Amino acid sequence: MSKLARVQMSPSGPSFSELVLGYWRMGDWERTDQQHLGFLEQHLELGITTVDHAHVYGSNPSCEEMFGRALKLAPALRDKIEIVSKCGIELVAPNGPSVNHYDSSVGAIIESVETSLRRLGVDHLDALLIHRPDWLMDADAVARAFEQLQVAGKVSHFGVSNFTSSQFQLLQSRLDGSLITNQIELNPLHLESIADGTLDYLQQVRVRPMAWSSLAGGRIFTALEQSARRVRKELEAISDELGASSIDQVIYAWVRQLPSRPVVVLGSGNIDRIQSAIDSIKLTLSRDQWYRIWVASTGEGVP
Amino acid sequence: MSKLARVQMSPSGPSFSELVLGYWRMGDWERTDQQHLGFLEQHLELGITTVDHAHVYGSNPSCEEMFGRALKLAPALRDKIEIVSKCGIELVAPNGPSVNHYDSSVGAIIESVETSLRRLGVDHLDALLIHRPDWLMDADAVARAFEQLQVAGKVSHFGVSNFTSSQFQLLQSRLDGSLITNQIELNPLHLESIADGTLDYLQQVRVRPMAWSSLAGGRIFTALEQSARRVRKELEAISDELGASSIDQVIYAWVRQLPSRPVVVLGSGNIDRIQSAIDSIKLTLSRDQWYRIWVASTGEGVP
Amino acid sequence: MSKLARVQMSPSGPSFSELVLGYWRMGDWERTDQQHLGFLEQHLELGITTVDHAHVYGSNPSCEEMFGRALKLAPALRDKIEIVSKCGIELVAPNGPSVNHYDSSVGAIIESVETSLRRLGVDHLDALLIHRPDWLMDADAVARAFEQLQVAGKVSHFGVSNFTSSQFQLLQSRLDGSLITNQIELNPLHLESIADGTLDYLQQVRVRPMAWSSLAGGRIFTALEQSARRVRKELEAISDELGASSIDQVIYAWVRQLPSRPVVVLGSGNIDRIQSAIDSIKLTLSRDQWYRIWVASTGEGVP
Repeated sequence: MSKLARVQMSPSGPSFSELVLGYWRMGDWERTDQQHLGFLEQHLELGITTVDHAHVYGSNPSCEEMFGRALKLAPALRDKIEIVSKCGIELVAPNGPSVNHYDSSVGAIIESVETSLRRLGVDHLDALLIHRPDWLMDADAVARAFEQLQVAGKVSHFGVSNFTSSQFQLLQSRLDGSLITNQIELNPLHLESIADGTLDYLQQVRVRPMAWSSLAGGRIFTALEQSARRVRKELEAISDELGASSIDQVIYAWVRQLPSRPVVVLGSGNIDRIQSAIDSIKLTLSRDQWYRIWVASTGEGVP
Repeated sequence: MSKLARVQMSPSGPSFSELVLGYWRMGDWERTDQQHLGFLEQHLELGITTVDHAHVYGSNPSCEEMFGRALKLAPALRDKIEIVSKCGIELVAPNGPSVNHYDSSVGAIIESVETSLRRLGVDHLDALLIHRPDWLMDADAVARAFEQLQVAGKVSHFGVSNFTSSQFQLLQSRLDGSLITNQIELNPLHLESIADGTLDYLQQVRVRPMAWSSLAGGRIFTALEQSARRVRKELEAISDELGASSIDQVIYAWVRQLPSRPVVVLGSGNIDRIQSAIDSIKLTLSRDQWYRIWVASTGEGVP
Repeated sequence: MSKLARVQMSPSGPSFSELVLGYWRMGDWERTDQQHLGFLEQHLELGITTVDHAHVYGSNPSCEEMFGRALKLAPALRDKIEIVSKCGIELVAPNGPSVNHYDSSVGAIIESVETSLRRLGVDHLDALLIHRPDWLMDADAVARAFEQLQVAGKVSHFGVSNFTSSQFQLLQSRLDGSLITNQIELNPLHLESIADGTLDYLQQVRVRPMAWSSLAGGRIFTALEQSARRVRKELEAISDELGASSIDQVIYAWVRQLPSRPVVVLGSGNIDRIQSAIDSIKLTLSRDQWYRIWVASTGEGVP
């Protein structure tokens, strides 16, 4: 049984486990607090120590709250995990926003972190990410919020999510420390960040992306459009060639081979699938295989 | 009655009034020189000291010429205003160009400024902008032209208009001083510069954009396409919520709240509308309101 | 009869002839080794000393091999020419790749150069270009390969081809020396690099592009779509106005007038056409003429 390595997210950044457990769907798992704890202990045992949350994941209760209840049953685990959470999305609510929008003001960032800490029942986050690029983002204000949170010991490191290179560079220009990641949507049906320069820039500054939606929210298994059919077919063929146990193993390997070295965020609550993802670490696609998936997705050969 | 603040355009740049009076349609106002002077005195009284011209605005006579005639009636006003003009567009003309094109050669820049100075009857411009990005722009040549004009005391500061970030960075790389602005098209029906990184970069280098066409040339009031209808409806609703006197007030506030802090160029010759624009300085949209206009324009919620 | 100037490709880079002879179609010329040598001697006599190859040009025999055989007949010519070649494309082959793809690994780069040297029968390349941006490009690995090749005396200078600005900057960030060129597709029917910032950045860092496909692979003479018809018509009119001998002369002048100063790669094996290209060096389009071609291609006037 493989065990996971740890990776450094940026030159002076923290170490995370090479795969991250994303808890955004934990509300669907229909588990008791004790069961959630059991799952957490299982993936910790396998080496996945980094967990991914966000202020907006789940409602009544929020995912952070559910996770916090499980953690309360075994408080000593706090020091064995890295908790990432995100702030900055405001969702439509009765007596609240009338459209979903973003808020990266000092007050919103700090309030969001306070809420996350309270829900999780912890005194600090290992990393806080700005969840979405906010057209109203005043980078100086974000920098002030980050500094307050760091000085107060409430957040150790900072990053972003779904940012373009220009947004990343803008925010970075106001910070003393380095942003530790840009968590982006990335899978064989979603190639934008590969082609638009986002990953080029992250490789340049040696910041590792986190890849969310590696399985395209399940669409990679089910979507009917031609590109998805072609990709599925190639994934199945390559899975056979490599002796992989499933096409998701091939996908994880495909994402991880990108030279910016993305850290994959897994969304499953099934420990067998998690184990399978960990086992995929040993897989390496040939360049021919990697590009077969690219060509299947784009529908045309490379020039 | 509100009075306008002054704002610094870039770290070592000049101060302009927070709203700028654009004179590109003054030919349509059908006024005498004395009436033009009266209007200038009125908006100066309200705190709008910065006026925006361009070599190509108006013909027979040009807007610069009309403005110069008015200014000649009260020459002491010259020192109380900041005159911005632009160069680099060559328009189709009998015995002239056969297609509209751009010219940012040393000769064209200097000749354009000489013409502007002669028409305006002044000895210097406070700022000169390259009106459009010229595919043939030799940045070294532009830098030489700028230096000659500055040494001769004919232009105090330099900027650009309608430039992308890469064009801006190219020209900046050849200059000792900082470009003071990028004057761009920006309104709720024209979001490109917000999403394509232009404003990210300006915020990063702390250069304030000037926003032209804030009312989309009037289309914001009249256009029939779905996006314009949706935007108009939201503007009206928000105007009511804020107790604004008109939807243009809401638009100016919407533009000004962008974190790159655009300076709005007003195109009206009606002093009541100018006063209304000045009064809009006190308006602040909530983030929910700001994003309602964004969503109305794009036709989809933010992700 | 004009003779060609030499140009420096980048601030500390090598000098190339102002026009480059591209040998990618030499297999179609159906010549003996002696005839190939004769052609080489002719264009050298005219001042075209730089020749452009790539690992993937031609097969059975490769273009490099054909060129090597000709060069073997007059080995003293090696020191009078600059040989550029490219690596990194893997083509579909029986028992080889199943899709065309890219490979910029250390091993692939070095093996490609060794093959090129063997085929050409020379001990070094004057410049090696990465042929296409490889989504799997590990810039540190490329830098290591470049260093090994330079230390071994096998390649003097390095560049890229078909790279975006972000890819160029990524690779440059890992190198001590400057990339000497970005060889890009550029002609009046292919304007992307002009508008997308690629040429802005090259001008900024004073690296001269090489322009491949200046005649759009011949489509500029034959294509039936409206834009090609319009462009052809303008080229013909301007050819008359300038007293040029052919529209390709106008095209070369049009490309060369871009302020990033592209070096045109000629693809013809006909010495009369080469002479004609050299004669075009003396042509200068007015800005009006330059923009007429732009407008003909895009189908709309500039804003």
